[in-house]
Amino acid sequence: MSNRPSFKDWMGQIQQRTESALEALLPDPGRAPQRLHQAMRYAVLGGGKRVRPLLAHAAGELSGAPAERVDRVSCAVELIHAYSLVHDDMPCMDDDVLRRGKPTVHVEYDQPTALLVGDALQTLAFQALTDAPAADDAATQLKMVGMLACASGSRGMAGGQAIDLASVGVQLSREELEFMHIHKTGALIRASILLGARAGRSLDAGELQRLDHYAKVVGLMFQVVDDILDAEADTATLGKTAGKDADNDKPTYVSLLGLNEARRLADEMLADARATLSPFGTAAGRLESLADYIVHRAF
Amino acid sequence: MSNRPSFKDWMGQIQQRTESALEALLPDPGRAPQRLHQAMRYAVLGGGKRVRPLLAHAAGELSGAPAERVDRVSCAVELIHAYSLVHDDMPCMDDDVLRRGKPTVHVEYDQPTALLVGDALQTLAFQALTDAPAADDAATQLKMVGMLACASGSRGMAGGQAIDLASVGVQLSREELEFMHIHKTGALIRASILLGARAGRSLDAGELQRLDHYAKVVGLMFQVVDDILDAEADTATLGKTAGKDADNDKPTYVSLLGLNEARRLADEMLADARATLSPFGTAAGRLESLADYIVHRAF
Repeated sequence: MSNRPSFKDWMGQIQQRTESALEALLPDPGRAPQRLHQAMRYAVLGGGKRVRPLLAHAAGELSGAPAERVDRVSCAVELIHAYSLVHDDMPCMDDDVLRRGKPTVHVEYDQPTALLVGDALQTLAFQALTDAPAADDAATQLKMVGMLACASGSRGMAGGQAIDLASVGVQLSREELEFMHIHKTGALIRASILLGARAGRSLDAGELQRLDHYAKVVGLMFQVVDDILDAEADTATLGKTAGKDADNDKPTYVSLLGLNEARRLADEMLADARATLSPFGTAAGRLESLADYIVHRAF
Repeated sequence: MSNRPSFKDWMGQIQQRTESALEALLPDPGRAPQRLHQAMRYAVLGGGKRVRPLLAHAAGELSGAPAERVDRVSCAVELIHAYSLVHDDMPCMDDDVLRRGKPTVHVEYDQPTALLVGDALQTLAFQALTDAPAADDAATQLKMVGMLACASGSRGMAGGQAIDLASVGVQLSREELEFMHIHKTGALIRASILLGARAGRSLDAGELQRLDHYAKVVGLMFQVVDDILDAEADTATLGKTAGKDADNDKPTYVSLLGLNEARRLADEMLADARATLSPFGTAAGRLESLADYIVHRAF
């Protein structure tokens, strides 16, 4: 595969095509209600590393999924992610004023608009996964919509948020912390990978089990690394208010395990993720590189 | 049809089966995250006239849809409605403390929980329409999910909310007021009817056009009547803080047309809805009764 782009080039290509797909999907800012549509675009476009779309496309390569189908998955998971950020940043939640180096939506616009932006972005995520083909047949695609809902709702991401809220100022065990993150960030990352793969051929039971293990490990690893970055970074390089979790007295892997042990854990998870992928051979190359990238993006 | 239940009995039956279907669909309150699940149930169960489920079932009778399928539609539209109420009542929006005679969710629980309850109820609405059969085939059901998204998002209900926000203290023309309500309440009412019908046989183009006209008229009529009730009623009978729209300096049909003219408009719309249904004959009996009920529920 001499023409295969480097990982860095591939990342850039996926980020670019995701931006285009989101741009095309988001309502025209000149169309009523204009302010809402402008704020939706402000919340989604021109920022973010697009980790979930990258994972979806990498998994799509594994199952030979047409990239156009994976674009629908990418938009869906990225819109769910974006909506959750908008709502999380609101004053009644984390009360954050900075996100991806820009004022958060309720600061740039206002609180009612931020509330509606989050609501409408969630709706758009489901629209993204229904309005165009994303699988071999409608029955599979309908199941994919169900998977997205499952990963996003009260037994997934939104549930993880609720557990997070309830854990402020509480000393959690590692098991409890893991339970929170499996829901809060893990569920949607896992869905990104499984849905990206589902856009292609059906994997057999063994393949699916391996991919799902990789997805779970990467979902949790992502959070461990996030906690490490949050503890280390300053506001300038992170583009969001750093040290926020410690300020809020929220439990993190770093507060629980210490920085060195958290780093060791991330490395251990990376080794687990790689070992899980190895039977797939080169077809899983992008998934492997992404696991590497997630751990080494800053340390 | 001697065994056909009276309209009142039928209403009671549909309300009861909707309550059961919602109860079964909502996550177990004993399951983590408990507080979120309890608050979700608090927001949805044991209240409301279930107008949208009634319309869905009435339309389902028109197309011979199995009632179990219409239950999925009913749950989906009612959950979208419920989520919108929870978010609308929040302090940054309408700041309401009373809903269906009970404290609103952010009062009974807290604001972050109310935010997550709304988010998770929206997700559950989409889950309701994917996890069990709601149409003859998966392709139709996938389209139904898309219709629900379209009716709920920035070009539907959430968009109507945004227009409503922007119109506080602004003098609207009747056309502008109509535009707002077509989105804010009309879109979801229309979807309830069209989705209820879609759970059964395919209607032909002429039937579909008539049903859609009925759906649009009823959606708008519902709002006209709501404005009339809001202007007339006191807090006790309405179960929510009355006169709120006038307090907030929000435009209503009553503030625009006056009470008598608004009543005349509602009657005119009712006549239009009935005329539109008449070619369906007795199959549209429940839809006709519901239009009557919506207009005459209090005056």
